[in-house]
Amino acid sequence: MHDNFLYLTKIGIDTYQHAVVFMRKDCHVCRSEGFNAMTRVKVCCERKSITATLITVSEDFLSHQQAGLSDVAWCMLGAEEGDVVQFSHAPAVDSMSAVRGKLYGEPLTAISAENIVTDINNGNYSDVQLAAFVAACADDRLSLEETIFLTQAMVNSGQKFAWPQARVLDKHCVGGLPGNRTTPIVTAIIAANGLVMPKTSSRAITSPAGTADTMETMAPVALSFNKMHAVVERHGACLAWGGAVSLSPIDDIIIRIERALDLDSEGQLVASVISKKVAAGSTHVLIDIPVGPSAKVRTHVAAEKLSHHLVATGEALGLYVETMITDGNQPVGRGIGPALEAHDILAVLRNKKNAPDDLIERSLQLAAKLLSMAEIEGLNNLSRCYQRAQETLISGQAYDKFIEICQAQGGFTEPGHAEFKQTLYAEGAGIVSYFNIRFIAKLASLSGAPNAPLAGIEMRVRLGDKVEQGQALLTLHAQAQGELDYALQFYYSHPEAIQINKEIL
Amino acid sequence: MHDNFLYLTKIGIDTYQHAVVFMRKDCHVCRSEGFNAMTRVKVCCERKSITATLITVSEDFLSHQQAGLSDVAWCMLGAEEGDVVQFSHAPAVDSMSAVRGKLYGEPLTAISAENIVTDINNGNYSDVQLAAFVAACADDRLSLEETIFLTQAMVNSGQKFAWPQARVLDKHCVGGLPGNRTTPIVTAIIAANGLVMPKTSSRAITSPAGTADTMETMAPVALSFNKMHAVVERHGACLAWGGAVSLSPIDDIIIRIERALDLDSEGQLVASVISKKVAAGSTHVLIDIPVGPSAKVRTHVAAEKLSHHLVATGEALGLYVETMITDGNQPVGRGIGPALEAHDILAVLRNKKNAPDDLIERSLQLAAKLLSMAEIEGLNNLSRCYQRAQETLISGQAYDKFIEICQAQGGFTEPGHAEFKQTLYAEGAGIVSYFNIRFIAKLASLSGAPNAPLAGIEMRVRLGDKVEQGQALLTLHAQAQGELDYALQFYYSHPEAIQINKEIL
Repeated sequence: MHDNFLYLTKIGIDTYQHAVVFMRKDCHVCRSEGFNAMTRVKVCCERKSITATLITVSEDFLSHQQAGLSDVAWCMLGAEEGDVVQFSHAPAVDSMSAVRGKLYGEPLTAISAENIVTDINNGNYSDVQLAAFVAACADDRLSLEETIFLTQAMVNSGQKFAWPQARVLDKHCVGGLPGNRTTPIVTAIIAANGLVMPKTSSRAITSPAGTADTMETMAPVALSFNKMHAVVERHGACLAWGGAVSLSPIDDIIIRIERALDLDSEGQLVASVISKKVAAGSTHVLIDIPVGPSAKVRTHVAAEKLSHHLVATGEALGLYVETMITDGNQPVGRGIGPALEAHDILAVLRNKKNAPDDLIERSLQLAAKLLSMAEIEGLNNLSRCYQRAQETLISGQAYDKFIEICQAQGGFTEPGHAEFKQTLYAEGAGIVSYFNIRFIAKLASLSGAPNAPLAGIEMRVRLGDKVEQGQALLTLHAQAQGELDYALQFYYSHPEAIQINKEIL
Repeated sequence: MHDNFLYLTKIGIDTYQHAVVFMRKDCHVCRSEGFNAMTRVKVCCERKSITATLITVSEDFLSHQQAGLSDVAWCMLGAEEGDVVQFSHAPAVDSMSAVRGKLYGEPLTAISAENIVTDINNGNYSDVQLAAFVAACADDRLSLEETIFLTQAMVNSGQKFAWPQARVLDKHCVGGLPGNRTTPIVTAIIAANGLVMPKTSSRAITSPAGTADTMETMAPVALSFNKMHAVVERHGACLAWGGAVSLSPIDDIIIRIERALDLDSEGQLVASVISKKVAAGSTHVLIDIPVGPSAKVRTHVAAEKLSHHLVATGEALGLYVETMITDGNQPVGRGIGPALEAHDILAVLRNKKNAPDDLIERSLQLAAKLLSMAEIEGLNNLSRCYQRAQETLISGQAYDKFIEICQAQGGFTEPGHAEFKQTLYAEGAGIVSYFNIRFIAKLASLSGAPNAPLAGIEMRVRLGDKVEQGQALLTLHAQAQGELDYALQFYYSHPEAIQINKEIL
């Protein structure tokens, strides 16, 4: 429309997922368009356009003819050095009126959910707008109907897999329980039984590790759509990161904001889970809901409600869902954090003596339930299914399948160990009577997990254990001294994270 | 604690109010602390510390020994070139748990409101956290009790004026009605009658101009605390920007986010208004509440509720509040936008023939009510007060007082005119039957107001006017062609902004 163009230059500035454009405050584009710092700007090159936030620079970074892009904006635009780009005010984000409406008490509709998801998917929402959307959906603000609308919109926004098999299995844990990393074990058992399980996982939201973070310490997880398709076709299963295959692609954008706010939404959780399973082409899904006083789901009543929403949303989208309510009173296994959890998983799959019993037991129960949902000839009750799962694990077939999947994804590697460690000891004798799951998760996050994949916590005691004064309770692992110090500071200021009851002795 | 220091350098990057720190991704601080892009970082120099968001740079901006700060972070820290600063992870913002609690339905308490306000005031909240707080309070989510807590916390967070007079007057308009710029006229009339009115105003939230924006086109408004005190002491009144004197200082931070989200909160509106009046040392306040179908307050029921909350919150903080519910069906005066409104104000104060009648009438009514609240000897009923207000205006005493105040604030200047204009015409004949106030305000904002102070709209018709085909309806004013185009585009895609009814003819 006008001569509002500048030449792009790569400036090597990392603003994570937040698209930022840099211009001289006194360049002709800022002056003619009336741009100021933090203006939302539409950036158009020949092939594509994106919306970015403007940061103005006044000194020697750029000439008057140049604009810089942050790394993510550069990627989104597919920019090349010297590209000519035009600038204009970003159009008003119309779907924000539905977000405001939701904050004012008007429910989302099928159309408004679709518009919001499309705008977020196209990068039209700024971080503060995303935060308002997350807040508008927080807790139980989304009704079942709104959740279904959001789920359908999220499915529509991304790619979809289709498989020839009539039953395509999947499992998911709603999270909130550190160390509950059953997925790689369950997937290996299911696939070793000749069934199909195109497993995609997310990265951590507010927890110290997601399954994708843990798997990434052992094998590449950022598979392309075609690569994932090929792995599942050939090996019956994969253990991939959902974000890379663009199943329900806004999920990772929302997760970043939820993480910054340490905020979850039941509706978004349901939409996130169900949309990814539908997009993965699954037909039968088992969902693990851990319940405990400091877990994500705190009561059986809340678990039943969540279960109902998962089942009903699945049904509305043609997906058969069962749920399993499990114990969420203490972390599962020993490790918390990507690599530390990977060590536990490998110990189970390798039938090591030190493999955590609780992780084995949970994995077998979930695998048994999934086998029963598959309705295989000869496996017509849950106890037979459990037996089959156990045989698959003990015989090493599950381990072989796991390694086969890792190799197919790009190669298995042994997870590493952190450089900085510190063990924390009991101040007095007693019985371990309570874990504050949230504080333990926070402690692992402060140690650096999941960004530092080797960081986290190695639990040394379990509920009901009798401990002596000076006995090790847990060991912190970190990849930087600063993070270790930071976690220690939190530990000493939150002594209620682990309670040791003297009076029971 | 460690050698986590770098040397500061000024890099001339403007990120508006958002404090940002720039470091090499591969510098020893990022590596030892485990910092990544968008990490919230505590930046400590000898005198002071601030929290900033990290943007990592990989190329030639900075050496490994340097860190850069955005302009606002540089100011907040009071930094000097070469300062040695230490870095650590920003501590978790504890008061965010109260924001999350509020989103989950737990009311704010006196303590949590105080903690939130203190954290925001200290710059500990990131933009997404601020957005979550704004969303948590949106619409009518704050109860009267929570509003009182928030108001008290906001008063406590800033500076306070004290005046010797027993009655210190003030007025305020809750906004939402473009062009309703009575404050400078009312203040001049009140002060010309020997009364005290330490008027502070805010900048626009989502509207195309706030009183501070309009006043700034005629006189400096960013007065220091001492300067404002001296102006009021000597001249009885001022017309200052509240943000500069740090009365309720978090207000401007919240306003920036509300503006980005185009979101208001009744509780925050009440807290914002009442806290600033208390901090200004006022004792008797009149609040104008315009009501109309597309104004901020849409019904008399809503206006009564808002009125009740304003009066009750005032009472809780020792402030006497009266409200006046006024017509909000169409813009007031002719101009919308800082300078255009200033022209209207000057026409009224100068008793020009073309002065808008509606602006005169509203100003006189408000001034009359304030005079009655002052309980001056001999002015014992509203009609006498009205007469006195009118005499003060017509005699030129109000104008003289206005100029006196402007001179005292740093000098009066005539407001200017925009370079780019475009008049829009009626497509058919009829009666002007409806203004969509929100669309008109948006149109003025898109023209560039208030950031471009000369931009906005000049209204050429009023409700009930009979217009011919091709008659001028309004003129857009802009300081940049890009903004004019942008407003035009909006105008043509929203034909319902002004409705002309053919059938009435």
